[in-house]
Amino acid sequence: MKARVTVTLKNGVLDPQGKAIEGALASLGVPGVAGVRQGKVFDIDLTHSQAGEAEAALKEACEKLLANTVIENYRIELVA
Amino acid sequence: MKARVTVTLKNGVLDPQGKAIEGALASLGVPGVAGVRQGKVFDIDLTHSQAGEAEAALKEACEKLLANTVIENYRIELVA
Repeated sequence: MKARVTVTLKNGVLDPQGKAIEGALASLGVPGVAGVRQGKVFDIDLTHSQAGEAEAALKEACEKLLANTVIENYRIELVA
Repeated sequence: MKARVTVTLKNGVLDPQGKAIEGALASLGVPGVAGVRQGKVFDIDLTHSQAGEAEAALKEACEKLLANTVIENYRIELVA
């Protein structure tokens, strides 16, 4: 089974990396960029065959490692 | 207008970071993880009102900065 986990900063949390990218795009002459926020995406292969088991394992992975739940949100999508 | 750009490694490109995460998840006792590949996601606010203009600006942003097109793929999604 395959899954995608997307980890993004919670609203209100300052994103210096996003600000840096925003500034760089402006200096590179890319028009119309008003804001950038960067996050992470994980494409995960799982040996589980049951969706429930897979989601439980992914939730555990996010809580333990993939996301800093104090400042980040995570979203789990089972792909196939 | 809002957009999401997802940047992932091309198939066949080694992902040491993904391997490290995979190993860490195993040592943390998260069951059934057979493979992890990490990528980046950018949530971008644009001042464009036309989808065509927005996509052109995002493509330029990816080609110039957000993605290393030698080893990475990028996908552009206009959100709203």
